[in-house]
Amino acid sequence: MSAHNLGIPKGVRDFGPLQMIRRKTILSTIEKVFQKYAYLPLETPAMENMSTLTGKYGEEGDQLLFRILDSGDFLAGVAEADFRAGAKAMAGKIAEKGLRYDLTVPFARYVVMNQHEITFPFKRYQIQPVWRADRPQKGRYREFYQCDADVVGSDSLICEAEFIGIIHEVLAGLGVRDFTVKINNRKVLTGIAEAIGAAGRETDFCVAIDKLDKIGLEKVELELKQRGFSQDSVEKARPVLTAANGSNAEKLAFLKDFLKDSETGLKGVAELEEIFEYLRLLDIEETKIQLDSSLARGLAYYTGAILEVKAGGVQIGSIGGGGRYDNLTGVFGLPGMSGVGFSFGLDRIYDVMEALNLFPKQSEVSAKALVAHFDEESFRHGLQIISELRREGIHSEIYPDQAKIKKQLNYANKKNIPFVILVGSEEMRTGRYTVKDMSKGEQQSLSLHEIVFTLR
Amino acid sequence: MSAHNLGIPKGVRDFGPLQMIRRKTILSTIEKVFQKYAYLPLETPAMENMSTLTGKYGEEGDQLLFRILDSGDFLAGVAEADFRAGAKAMAGKIAEKGLRYDLTVPFARYVVMNQHEITFPFKRYQIQPVWRADRPQKGRYREFYQCDADVVGSDSLICEAEFIGIIHEVLAGLGVRDFTVKINNRKVLTGIAEAIGAAGRETDFCVAIDKLDKIGLEKVELELKQRGFSQDSVEKARPVLTAANGSNAEKLAFLKDFLKDSETGLKGVAELEEIFEYLRLLDIEETKIQLDSSLARGLAYYTGAILEVKAGGVQIGSIGGGGRYDNLTGVFGLPGMSGVGFSFGLDRIYDVMEALNLFPKQSEVSAKALVAHFDEESFRHGLQIISELRREGIHSEIYPDQAKIKKQLNYANKKNIPFVILVGSEEMRTGRYTVKDMSKGEQQSLSLHEIVFTLR
Repeated sequence: MSAHNLGIPKGVRDFGPLQMIRRKTILSTIEKVFQKYAYLPLETPAMENMSTLTGKYGEEGDQLLFRILDSGDFLAGVAEADFRAGAKAMAGKIAEKGLRYDLTVPFARYVVMNQHEITFPFKRYQIQPVWRADRPQKGRYREFYQCDADVVGSDSLICEAEFIGIIHEVLAGLGVRDFTVKINNRKVLTGIAEAIGAAGRETDFCVAIDKLDKIGLEKVELELKQRGFSQDSVEKARPVLTAANGSNAEKLAFLKDFLKDSETGLKGVAELEEIFEYLRLLDIEETKIQLDSSLARGLAYYTGAILEVKAGGVQIGSIGGGGRYDNLTGVFGLPGMSGVGFSFGLDRIYDVMEALNLFPKQSEVSAKALVAHFDEESFRHGLQIISELRREGIHSEIYPDQAKIKKQLNYANKKNIPFVILVGSEEMRTGRYTVKDMSKGEQQSLSLHEIVFTLR
Repeated sequence: MSAHNLGIPKGVRDFGPLQMIRRKTILSTIEKVFQKYAYLPLETPAMENMSTLTGKYGEEGDQLLFRILDSGDFLAGVAEADFRAGAKAMAGKIAEKGLRYDLTVPFARYVVMNQHEITFPFKRYQIQPVWRADRPQKGRYREFYQCDADVVGSDSLICEAEFIGIIHEVLAGLGVRDFTVKINNRKVLTGIAEAIGAAGRETDFCVAIDKLDKIGLEKVELELKQRGFSQDSVEKARPVLTAANGSNAEKLAFLKDFLKDSETGLKGVAELEEIFEYLRLLDIEETKIQLDSSLARGLAYYTGAILEVKAGGVQIGSIGGGGRYDNLTGVFGLPGMSGVGFSFGLDRIYDVMEALNLFPKQSEVSAKALVAHFDEESFRHGLQIISELRREGIHSEIYPDQAKIKKQLNYANKKNIPFVILVGSEEMRTGRYTVKDMSKGEQQSLSLHEIVFTLR
C-alpha cells in the first residue's frame, strides 16, 4: 500500500492534536458540570446485541445501525436460500452484534440488567462515541460523541430544571454567552391537537409546524392541509403558530386558555409552570429560556418536557437536546420507570466555538518549554534540566536528536512552545541559561531556579 | 424483550459508576504524565478500512479483526459463487471496514496521511478502546482500552529512557510502589542467535526461552531441541539462560563478552548502555530496572529496545510494554521513519490496584452532600441551598422526590455521600441546618455559610 491511496472510511474522522485539545476542553467542562450535579459515570460497550438495538429507533433508525459480521465461519448454517432472500434477511443470520446508535438505549438496557444493584433515582452521565450509517454530509458524521446525562426513577420536575442549570453552567464555562434554551411539553402538544379537533395527530402536526422558522406561516398551513388537517383545525391552530412572541408568562397564560378543555394539555402547562418555579428557586435567570409550544424533537420518544439549546450569532443547529420519557426501560421488561435526559452535541458545540472564535489562542500549547542543545555534551546536561522541570510539574521536552539550533527553534515554533531553554558550553559553565520567549523574540539569562519560577 | 434474557455480547463489559471512577483515576494519571512529557493527544476513528488493518498483525491477528457489514444492500454485486466460496472470501465482498485492533497501526496510517502537516519528531498519545475477536477468558476481553504514547521520527534513545521515566511517574502516581521494568534489545537477541550458531533463528529461540520463568531451564532446553536447535547451540545458550541474576552492569559485561563476535549484538549492548546512561542523567533510580536478555514480546515487531512492566506482589501479567520499531510507517509507503512506543494496559493496572487494595476508599464518592427535606416547602427551600452549594463549586444534590427521611438517608448511604443536610421547618425558621456526618453518625447545626466552609 502506498501513501497516496491511504484513507479512512467516509463519514469518520481523525482528530489531530489541536482539535483534540479543543475537544477535551469541551468534554471536560461538560463532565465537570455533570459531576457537580452529582451524576455518576457509566460506560457501555461499543457493541450491543442486535436484539437490544433493533426496533428502538424506528424503521429509519434500524437501517442506520452498523452491524458487525460474526467472527469465525459466519456462513456455517446459512443456506443458499438465505443468501437468495437478500441482504436484509441475510444480515440477521450473519451479524448478531451491532454498534451502539445512541447512549440512551444502552443505558436503559444497563438499568434493567442491573436494577437490583442500582440505587434509584439513578443519575448517570455517559460520554462516548456512537455510530450511525447516515449519509455523510456537512456537520453529519458516522461516528460522533454524545454527552448524555439522565435520571431514571424520579418523577420530579426538579430534574428538568437542573438540566437547564447544567446547560447554563456548561455554556458559561465555555464562554458561549448567547444561547437560547427552548422548552416545551409533550402534553401541551397533545392538548393542542385535541384543542384544534385533531386529537392524537400531534406527530403530524409537529412535523409540519417544526418548519415554521424556515418556511413561514403560510406554507406551514398549506402543509397541514396536505397532511389532512381540516380547514377548521388549521384556523384553530393559527393562534398557536403566531404566539411565538411574548414572555414565557404570556405564553403560559395563552396556553392555559387555549387548552382549557384538554386535561392533558393543562397538565402540560402545570408542569411547565412548576419548572419555571424551580428555575426561580435555583436562581437561574429566565432571560435565555423560551417556552416554544412548537418544539417537538423526535416526538415519538418524549412524554413530558422537551428541551433544546441553540447558540445565537451562528447558523448552527441545536447544540443539545433532551426531555422526559415516562417509560424508558419498559421496552426491556422493566415498566414504570420514568427517565429524563439531556445530551450535548460535542461537534456542534465545537463548530459554534470555532465560528465565534471562543477557543483560547494558547489551546494548542503542548509543552511550556523546549530544552535545545548544541552538541552531545550539552544534550546530556539538558537531560538534568528537563528532569528538574518535570519534577516541578512543568510540561516540557528536550529536543531528542542532535540538530542545528535553528531546526530546534523551528520545532518549538511549529508546536507553539512558548519558551526555549538554550544549553551551550557557556551555559553549562555558568549555570545560567539563555531562555528565549518565542512569541516576543526576547531572551534573557536565568538560573535553573529562576526558570522554574518563571515557568510555573 | 423481557429483563431476564437481556445481555451484552460475550467478552465486552459495562462499567458502572464505581469502576468508572477508578478507571478514570488511572486514565487521568496516565494522561497527565503523557502531557507532562509533551506528548500530544490524537484520536482516530473506531472504523478503519480493512485494507489498512489486514496484513499488519500476522495471520492470527487478521482472524481476530471485527468486520463491519457494509450498509445498504451489501449483497448487490455478490454472486452465488462468492457465497459458495465460503466465509473468508465472502467477508472481503460484504465488509470493507473493520474495528481497530490496536492504536499503533491507525497511528502509522495517520502519520503517513498527514506527513506534510506534522512537525517531526511527532510525540503523540492516544487513549481509546480497541477490539479483538479473541476467545474471551479471565483478563482477556474483546473490547479494552489501550493507552499508547509513541514518538515517530527520532532515532534518539532518550525516547526509550523517557518512557521508563513515564512508567515510574505513572505508577508512583497510582501508588504502585513495587514493580519491575524489564528491558532488552532486539539486536541482543539477534546477536545471541548468531553467537550460539543459529543466526536468524531468534524468533524460535525467544518463543522457547520466553517460558523460562514458567517451566524452568531443563524443559526450555528440551523445547529448543524440539525446535531444531543443535545440542551445541543449546549448550552455548546456557550461559544466557542462567545469567538472569546479577546487576545490570554485570549482565551488560556478560553480554559484551558473549556477543563479542556479533556486530549486531554489540550494537544492541551499546544501545542498552546508552539508555542506562540517560536514566542516570534523568535521575531515575536503577533499582526497579532489570536488563532481561530473554525478553522478546512479539519479536516480529521490534527492531531495537524492548520494554515490559510487571507489578510485584501479584500474579498478574505485564501492565505495559513497548519498544522501538525502525520502520513504523513503511508498510503505508513512508519508509525510514523510526518509531518507539509504550502502551499501558488499563485493565491490568486496574486488577493490580484492586488486588493490592490501592484504590482510595472514598473513590466512590459522587456528591459531597445530599440535601434532604420533609415536605414540599422544605424541598423548595432546599433548592436555594443546593444552588448556593453548587455556586461554591461543591458537588452536591437534592433528593428529587418527596420521600421519607429514612429513604433519603439510605440513598446517601448507598451512594457513599458523606454529608446530609436536613431541611425542616425549624431549619427554615432559624437558618441553621442539621448536617449529618454519615460515616461518624454525628450531627451538628450549621449556617449555610458554615456548611460551605466545612464542605470545601
